[in-house]
Amino acid sequence: MIIVLRPDATKKQIDHIIEKVKKLGLKSMVSQGIERTIIGVIGEEDLLRVQPLEAYPGVEKVMSILKPYKLVSREFKKENSIVDTDGVKIGGKKIVVMAGPCSVENLEGLRKIGRAVKASGALILRGGAFKPRSSPYSFQGLGEEGLRYLNEVKKDTGLKIVTEVMDTRDVELVEKYADMLQVGARNMQNFNLLKEVGLSKKPVLLKRGISSTIKEFLMSAEYVLSNGNFNCVLCERGIRTFEDSTRFTLDLNAVPLIKSLSHLPVIVDPSHGTGKWDLVGAMSRAAIAAGADGLIVEVHPNPEDAYSDGAQSLLPEKFDAMMKELAPVAKAVGREL
Amino acid sequence: MIIVLRPDATKKQIDHIIEKVKKLGLKSMVSQGIERTIIGVIGEEDLLRVQPLEAYPGVEKVMSILKPYKLVSREFKKENSIVDTDGVKIGGKKIVVMAGPCSVENLEGLRKIGRAVKASGALILRGGAFKPRSSPYSFQGLGEEGLRYLNEVKKDTGLKIVTEVMDTRDVELVEKYADMLQVGARNMQNFNLLKEVGLSKKPVLLKRGISSTIKEFLMSAEYVLSNGNFNCVLCERGIRTFEDSTRFTLDLNAVPLIKSLSHLPVIVDPSHGTGKWDLVGAMSRAAIAAGADGLIVEVHPNPEDAYSDGAQSLLPEKFDAMMKELAPVAKAVGREL
Amino acid sequence: MIIVLRPDATKKQIDHIIEKVKKLGLKSMVSQGIERTIIGVIGEEDLLRVQPLEAYPGVEKVMSILKPYKLVSREFKKENSIVDTDGVKIGGKKIVVMAGPCSVENLEGLRKIGRAVKASGALILRGGAFKPRSSPYSFQGLGEEGLRYLNEVKKDTGLKIVTEVMDTRDVELVEKYADMLQVGARNMQNFNLLKEVGLSKKPVLLKRGISSTIKEFLMSAEYVLSNGNFNCVLCERGIRTFEDSTRFTLDLNAVPLIKSLSHLPVIVDPSHGTGKWDLVGAMSRAAIAAGADGLIVEVHPNPEDAYSDGAQSLLPEKFDAMMKELAPVAKAVGREL
Amino acid sequence: MIIVLRPDATKKQIDHIIEKVKKLGLKSMVSQGIERTIIGVIGEEDLLRVQPLEAYPGVEKVMSILKPYKLVSREFKKENSIVDTDGVKIGGKKIVVMAGPCSVENLEGLRKIGRAVKASGALILRGGAFKPRSSPYSFQGLGEEGLRYLNEVKKDTGLKIVTEVMDTRDVELVEKYADMLQVGARNMQNFNLLKEVGLSKKPVLLKRGISSTIKEFLMSAEYVLSNGNFNCVLCERGIRTFEDSTRFTLDLNAVPLIKSLSHLPVIVDPSHGTGKWDLVGAMSRAAIAAGADGLIVEVHPNPEDAYSDGAQSLLPEKFDAMMKELAPVAKAVGREL
Repeated sequence: MIIVLRPDATKKQIDHIIEKVKKLGLKSMVSQGIERTIIGVIGEEDLLRVQPLEAYPGVEKVMSILKPYKLVSREFKKENSIVDTDGVKIGGKKIVVMAGPCSVENLEGLRKIGRAVKASGALILRGGAFKPRSSPYSFQGLGEEGLRYLNEVKKDTGLKIVTEVMDTRDVELVEKYADMLQVGARNMQNFNLLKEVGLSKKPVLLKRGISSTIKEFLMSAEYVLSNGNFNCVLCERGIRTFEDSTRFTLDLNAVPLIKSLSHLPVIVDPSHGTGKWDLVGAMSRAAIAAGADGLIVEVHPNPEDAYSDGAQSLLPEKFDAMMKELAPVAKAVGREL
Repeated sequence: MIIVLRPDATKKQIDHIIEKVKKLGLKSMVSQGIERTIIGVIGEEDLLRVQPLEAYPGVEKVMSILKPYKLVSREFKKENSIVDTDGVKIGGKKIVVMAGPCSVENLEGLRKIGRAVKASGALILRGGAFKPRSSPYSFQGLGEEGLRYLNEVKKDTGLKIVTEVMDTRDVELVEKYADMLQVGARNMQNFNLLKEVGLSKKPVLLKRGISSTIKEFLMSAEYVLSNGNFNCVLCERGIRTFEDSTRFTLDLNAVPLIKSLSHLPVIVDPSHGTGKWDLVGAMSRAAIAAGADGLIVEVHPNPEDAYSDGAQSLLPEKFDAMMKELAPVAKAVGREL
Repeated sequence: MIIVLRPDATKKQIDHIIEKVKKLGLKSMVSQGIERTIIGVIGEEDLLRVQPLEAYPGVEKVMSILKPYKLVSREFKKENSIVDTDGVKIGGKKIVVMAGPCSVENLEGLRKIGRAVKASGALILRGGAFKPRSSPYSFQGLGEEGLRYLNEVKKDTGLKIVTEVMDTRDVELVEKYADMLQVGARNMQNFNLLKEVGLSKKPVLLKRGISSTIKEFLMSAEYVLSNGNFNCVLCERGIRTFEDSTRFTLDLNAVPLIKSLSHLPVIVDPSHGTGKWDLVGAMSRAAIAAGADGLIVEVHPNPEDAYSDGAQSLLPEKFDAMMKELAPVAKAVGREL
Repeated sequence: MIIVLRPDATKKQIDHIIEKVKKLGLKSMVSQGIERTIIGVIGEEDLLRVQPLEAYPGVEKVMSILKPYKLVSREFKKENSIVDTDGVKIGGKKIVVMAGPCSVENLEGLRKIGRAVKASGALILRGGAFKPRSSPYSFQGLGEEGLRYLNEVKKDTGLKIVTEVMDTRDVELVEKYADMLQVGARNMQNFNLLKEVGLSKKPVLLKRGISSTIKEFLMSAEYVLSNGNFNCVLCERGIRTFEDSTRFTLDLNAVPLIKSLSHLPVIVDPSHGTGKWDLVGAMSRAAIAAGADGLIVEVHPNPEDAYSDGAQSLLPEKFDAMMKELAPVAKAVGREL
């Protein structure tokens, strides 16, 4: 931690800070520059991080040297983590594709989609039973009934199930049916929910918040790991920017950057990341070329009747064509689909 | 709802859309322009809003005519709503100031702050017992113990209590102690939590999400009102932008804009909105001049020992000076403090 | 300057950096932490700033201690600068209001506006003769003819003239007619233009770019001052964010923050900052309450016939009413209008 | 154009609007909804676009049906444009890579880089002779001397030259030496400069502004084309967002989106788009997989001595390795390198 003092900081103020640092069991080094004095603090940075150093008299700014996350960091674990989702391994050579409708709407439709995406090469079925919707008047999901449908299609197709949990009270229920618990973008900083899924035995798919920095994203993952669950997959799904011709701005920079900072697998959601089905193919190819370990894609046999997100859903035949185009890209970067 | 067709939309596609619209019991008007055909749809726009019209073949874009919220809108209720918080009225001529520490830390400290802010003119005591923290390693709040301290200081000072609830499971508990339930910025789209506080008898203080549009903010308030709780106060607390020399960008445009769109009271949080205690005074004055109905301000007798947000907390004496400077500004815009 | 090394930095890499620092005539201090080694560099930070230290092997990140601007800083000059615009003093006790149409359209209209805003208390007439327009098909301004009209109205009313210069080739021409040269938001980083107005004898009104940080804003002003022109007024006019219900997000935090960082006067443009005439009054009051030294406001007698920016222009009678409401706010913060 | 009226719009206000529309030679259709009346206007939307309809009494909002650009649009020209840069064709099957240093620093260094990037497969040499720098105290480029060096290396290697022009006064000079005129991100809305390069016979490389929407980007290109120069290549180079762990957020969504909206070639700048050399390889692969027609990459033999942008520059050997990795990705999407 580096503490930069104001040009008019007094000796008394400096001594006061040094005293505090000492009380915390840390060592400080004062360095007198031409225009500024700075204090470097050596020792457990976490002890200092909780101190509001910027509130101390004489302090201009405080700069952190170390990263605020540990367990998720590449420094904690050098090799890539591989997350096992009931047998499907995410983070290895094989690119894992999750596909399915935005919302679970009915059993027959879901079965149809499940069979289709399975045939095209998807390994995990996505579908929302609990749906976070901006409007209280929109379809809010089928709840447990939707979970049962997902399970039904799992039995039928062998696809594993990923589905969102939105409420701490529902974690136990969703765990019963799902192979992987999705924490949605709006809940990336719902810390109580993160703690609950961190206590679960099921792997977690953590989506990045639409206005979360990569640092905050990794700190939310730290909540999951620090509660004991190391099976956490990160998902870049677009951030909110000024650009309004796409639903979000897919931040593919995040893929190689997170891979360098963390050992956790990273997948990409090109459906939410663009909001337009006709951009999904190009951005799926880009995601894999950037190094993503997988994709999560919305597929619906009849997007115009979808209860949600129709505009960004692929028809099963378009999804199939996309998967065929992805295979050579995966190969070009040393992966397989 | 206006549906703009692609230049190459076929007659069959147009007929298909008209058919759908008809089935929903709505009327469509086709208008043939020089470069584009558009379809105007007349009737309950909500029926259409849930249709993914952009997924229909031949459609280029869909434009909404009406606002997606109802109960919170100025059109639903012309006069300003006044929210009664155990006798303190928010939304009337009097500017209501809520003040207190970021976190409740101990009873004695809280009592001291409570007495100080009361003496300076605050009417409501703020203080977090449950704290959303980016890092799992930061202080997470005292929980029920903190709530008891708040209640204790209420008895002592007569200040009303506003405190955050973060988890659907805690609503019942927090209701027992608080006069007003705060939903924090990170939970503005925690829809299950919004439903729960919407079912409460206690007024709600809803903070704007750091990347929420004003439309989304009002739709979240719509969740509260549509569940039966019309005692909802909105709080602008800064949005996330590229500017990094302040913690957030306080969006004061939101104050007069929301007052024109909605009947609900609007208050401003200059502490989070700037992240710097030395900007809090100026931005408090600006908020009131812009038409805010109140303020929520962090005050701590010893910011350098605060468990959280020390850098943006005012000393009680600075808070007192600020209140004195606010009074003439309130008067200048026809309000009182 | 603090150089943070990677955990795997070698002694050779560290020595290499120390060697470089030494060659520049600077002194380095190595500090060995538990997880990281850091190198503090003492001496002229500017010498180092031009070195791409992050490109050196073994370096993780580089943190600046000092601000990159000098002449504009509060440290360079403690007291507030007052900019004299042909007798109108900006930056003193008196709030200076600049008002007029977005574009100069014709002499009679301009004269009418000029007389009206003068009567309401404006001291400077604004109006664009050269107009930056997103579309090549929009009205591009009257050019020199517009400048002559402005000058004509100056003679008639005594108002001083501020008008935009967009092209290095036009600086000489605009100088002939204008009392103050405006550099628009789109040109805030048109460095050649900044140099030219920096060489001018006329004061400069520098508008903040829509995506410029306050640091970059001050560095652009540094271009003006470092070329010899210390008569520079800064203008906050809204930044681009995700919020789309206003044209821009007016960043009033910038007002007290810039006043603390710099000695230059700061004014606010509530017309562009909101894009909606019905928010201009509230945000003008807020700007003054936040500490602004002046305002620049769009006024048009017939907004629906304005060649540009009609939606954000005030009618002269609304402007007059606004000025009357501003006076008590100015007084409440110890200023006068 | 759709004009949505306020709920309280009077018949007189509606008639007034219809009258105006009629005077412009356009036809209006009034449609009475349950909550709102709307007026659809048929005819040349451009005639209306310049009218500040939102300033008319009774108007709530105005919605555009048509795009504001013409010549750059896919509707104007269905097939892809191919831009010929002294024989190098951009926009065809072959991916064109432009590479070189941020700034031209000296002849020998430039020659070395030129030979290296040529050997690795680059076809165009990039290098700045005029440099836009945030600080007046940073290296500002060699000017004409730099242009001569570029020309020298062109003779030596056969590489074509792209270099930035920042000032309308320099267009003639830069044209003499360059094969392609670059308009930088900061000048994307320097409309006078756009007009000048639009009058040039040399092709233009137009970089997207860091806070420009795709619509604004295309409208800036419209300035170039509408002045007669159809040889315009667009470059996505990252936009400014809240994310601060990369220098910018590379918006690859823009690539397939612009390809669908416009016939112009699109290239990507992964060096500025990330600001980190170790992300350049991954994002180059992603850009090509997303459909980019080319890349522009910073390469420097000794990044730690670069006068600018060292942190994002590749060593020639890393560039060479990257080119080898790009080839199979290009092939996987049906292109060649």
